[in-house]
Amino acid sequence: MSATPPFKRIALIGLGLIGSSLARGIQQLGLAGELVATDNSAAVRARAVEIKLADRIADDNASAVKDADLVIACVPVGVAGDVAKSIAAHLAPGAIVSDVGSVKASVLHAMSEYLPDNIHFIPAHPVAGTENSGPDSGFAELFSNRWCILTPPDGADPAAVEKLTGFWAALGANVEIMQAAHHDLVLAVTSHLPHLIAYTIVGTADELEDVTRSEVLKFSAGGFRDFTRIAASDPTMWRDVFLANKDAVLEMLGTFQEDLSKLTRAIRRDDGDALFEHFTRTRAIRRGIVSIGQDEAAPDFGRKHQALTKKAD
Amino acid sequence: MSATPPFKRIALIGLGLIGSSLARGIQQLGLAGELVATDNSAAVRARAVEIKLADRIADDNASAVKDADLVIACVPVGVAGDVAKSIAAHLAPGAIVSDVGSVKASVLHAMSEYLPDNIHFIPAHPVAGTENSGPDSGFAELFSNRWCILTPPDGADPAAVEKLTGFWAALGANVEIMQAAHHDLVLAVTSHLPHLIAYTIVGTADELEDVTRSEVLKFSAGGFRDFTRIAASDPTMWRDVFLANKDAVLEMLGTFQEDLSKLTRAIRRDDGDALFEHFTRTRAIRRGIVSIGQDEAAPDFGRKHQALTKKAD
Repeated sequence: MSATPPFKRIALIGLGLIGSSLARGIQQLGLAGELVATDNSAAVRARAVEIKLADRIADDNASAVKDADLVIACVPVGVAGDVAKSIAAHLAPGAIVSDVGSVKASVLHAMSEYLPDNIHFIPAHPVAGTENSGPDSGFAELFSNRWCILTPPDGADPAAVEKLTGFWAALGANVEIMQAAHHDLVLAVTSHLPHLIAYTIVGTADELEDVTRSEVLKFSAGGFRDFTRIAASDPTMWRDVFLANKDAVLEMLGTFQEDLSKLTRAIRRDDGDALFEHFTRTRAIRRGIVSIGQDEAAPDFGRKHQALTKKAD
Repeated sequence: MSATPPFKRIALIGLGLIGSSLARGIQQLGLAGELVATDNSAAVRARAVEIKLADRIADDNASAVKDADLVIACVPVGVAGDVAKSIAAHLAPGAIVSDVGSVKASVLHAMSEYLPDNIHFIPAHPVAGTENSGPDSGFAELFSNRWCILTPPDGADPAAVEKLTGFWAALGANVEIMQAAHHDLVLAVTSHLPHLIAYTIVGTADELEDVTRSEVLKFSAGGFRDFTRIAASDPTMWRDVFLANKDAVLEMLGTFQEDLSKLTRAIRRDDGDALFEHFTRTRAIRRGIVSIGQDEAAPDFGRKHQALTKKAD
């Protein structure tokens, strides 16, 4: 506590997985003189008081942001505009206002409409998460060694961008600056399309007539269980993502469909060479991800395996 | 070593992930009086000698199976018939012959053609694996708490089925008996379709014009990286699976395509309620898998997260 914290007061709006992880990280690292947080759910606010997620839990957005020099909206992208509207008149001049939404062009548009000119609006997206939600699911290390993408609008103050960069870097994240539209295209392929596909296949498996749900669960270690993790992600958040990034998602879906048709055709025509060539190519991508530290090198995501026990003789 | 091992001599044909895991488990638990193994690759045989995967490494299939009372072919399903042909004349009467292939009807057909009547042929499929291949990738605990499906042909000897059941149970597996055709349908959804989808989406991401490979790798923690694991599985094994289980895979693909069209339409029409309802339903499947112990309860598959470090003041 010897050094002056980089922010005098940080306000977090929304205490789900991301907001509550930020709260824990900010407290652990002493990034704010005072941490104020709020959530639109009274139950979540009460829980946040119980588990001490902030120095002070405010009852509403307006009082939460008062005198804060950093405000971060940690809410589903569909309500980012509403949050901006609720805080606009109460922001301190010169404050940095940011968010953590998985879509950036729509958030930039929705929040800009309400935010005043005397603050610095710099949207952000930490590419990190788990399948869990709520104030108890967060942890300070969530952003460590993950990327956080900032999409400052044209003409954004470089000093404010730098200060927000420092904030995410302190939490262990690597920061990248990008145009909002490009962000939305990149994330459509690295995040949104995978989620949509996972949601689809898990739904498919659950509705079959000839295969029971019990069989699907029991034999899920054949590959299916990997998909169920991201298909267990927060429904509200993901509904909003698909609606807010509709164009890029539909474009990626089109490409995916073409590729799936190609592989389907190879199976139908017994074209083993085409399948082998494709499967060999995709194997290399995994190695690339592991080599840059974006996933575990250990097989099977490092899942644990029970030790064998010899039966008593 | 005080008890008599359940098998006098076990022969393993093929020392990839599954074969070398079996070898390690058999040795650790003392399930064979003698363990003999072979592989069609001289390099793998040499490596197997080096790391002592068996009591004896045979030069070919015929000599490996001599006098064995349990023979397990651990090879891609496309060559199961060839293996049966190579060992048929050398099998000891009364031996149990099995395999570990991910497709059962085609293996049953291909191997039955060559195997003599005086042995017990009982196909098997341990639903377990990792994305790694080769003799160094195996480990004794691979089958622990996973399912192994046996598909004995009509009229199989109950005592032989029971003996093979005991073998897999000793390795920690839960054993289920199933008709080969039903196995192929169940695995088409819990394993083959997920792999095909993962192979497709990883290929899609790798071929985009507007998003670079470096961006795909960096921002893969948004969900994409989960798919890269199974898309890194052995290309030969998976080529053979899709060709051998073509009908069931194409049927599941058809259902998947219908469901994907339904969700695509919901996005196109801004039907948030339909998306929310679907995403809520799929979330429950994950809980089912975790509750029966077929995946980690820890978020993010229990992946490790680096601890935060406070910068020096």
